[in-house]
Amino acid sequence: MGVEKFVIRLLLVHESGLLRTALASVIGAEPDIEAAACAWRDARSRARSMEPQVCVVDTDCPAADKAARKGEWGKFVASASGEGGDCGLLVLVNSERPGPLRRAHEARALGYVDKDAPPQRLIEAIRRVARKERYVDDALGYGFLQAAKIPLTERELGVLSLAADGASISEIARTLHLSTGTIRNYLAAITRKTGARNRVDAIRISQCEGWV
Amino acid sequence: MGVEKFVIRLLLVHESGLLRTALASVIGAEPDIEAAACAWRDARSRARSMEPQVCVVDTDCPAADKAARKGEWGKFVASASGEGGDCGLLVLVNSERPGPLRRAHEARALGYVDKDAPPQRLIEAIRRVARKERYVDDALGYGFLQAAKIPLTERELGVLSLAADGASISEIARTLHLSTGTIRNYLAAITRKTGARNRVDAIRISQCEGWV
Repeated sequence: MGVEKFVIRLLLVHESGLLRTALASVIGAEPDIEAAACAWRDARSRARSMEPQVCVVDTDCPAADKAARKGEWGKFVASASGEGGDCGLLVLVNSERPGPLRRAHEARALGYVDKDAPPQRLIEAIRRVARKERYVDDALGYGFLQAAKIPLTERELGVLSLAADGASISEIARTLHLSTGTIRNYLAAITRKTGARNRVDAIRISQCEGWV
Repeated sequence: MGVEKFVIRLLLVHESGLLRTALASVIGAEPDIEAAACAWRDARSRARSMEPQVCVVDTDCPAADKAARKGEWGKFVASASGEGGDCGLLVLVNSERPGPLRRAHEARALGYVDKDAPPQRLIEAIRRVARKERYVDDALGYGFLQAAKIPLTERELGVLSLAADGASISEIARTLHLSTGTIRNYLAAITRKTGARNRVDAIRISQCEGWV
């Protein structure tokens, strides 16, 4: 008369095949976790077919940033949750980059683990998120404080993000249906608010912090 | 009358504690490999005390880029090699970023493994490098071709790297003891050679490729 064991179905999304396979193998060695791993390009279809209870996403890589900006995180979690299902999002974050932390919060992540934490802490976090409990790594307190204090507005972040992609002032103006004078004003405000020396420096600072 | 088994001492350097611990645990499960892992800040002292036969370095992260630019890779391998010892450098590279690939080649890496490869391929590469044999992942052929074709000279890369850090033209001129006109000419050449729309775009392209 065996008791049926509850096994957590976990999907891990990370850019590097080498690292995600290694991490999934360490986590999957736990008796109560069944871990699969994939890249961003396969994340939605994999999530749909597997319907995991927990999705672990590394926020600290260019592919995740790009996906966040295109609003794909929400779609990914929705795919994972399936028909009336429910999937908890757990993110791996770099405590020194507040931008991805804020995007994870906006995507309603339930768990937050520092990328520098030992694997045991991630495993603990997975169990908590599977029980629909919030988990926030102690190391991330300061990061959250920083994330709450991004000095730029949504509009300014939009302008800066286009500038960082190499668009000229007139291209940005056309894209956002604004005048070139307005864009110049935005860029001046951005440079001032970020404490940058010039526009290129403002882009560098914002990329370092993970704001764009 | 047991035969003494040859065990490979391996040191793995990666920014994220979570990922390096997971990777070291998967590699260390092999009977002939003893794997330790650390961050860049501890890499030299750890290498000195441990004298590994093989050092695995993830080139595809900001800390490794910074260390490469400060010439620390060579010092790290020298520390690992110790007194008359000898340590082979094996790098994990992103096949789409030729810059770190070129820097690894300049640091005389013996092994090159794609970060998207399965762990088994890294383990095979570790054994080869421990025997002082070269190992180049099949997936990296095109990357090497690209790495050989970075269109900018050393001087241009120096100028661009300062510009990417947010320095103004006059600051770059002062730093390199050149006139502002010369710096303007360099920046114009860089923009043309990278096929960029403007200076910010040239910085973006060069960072994407991992040249600066």
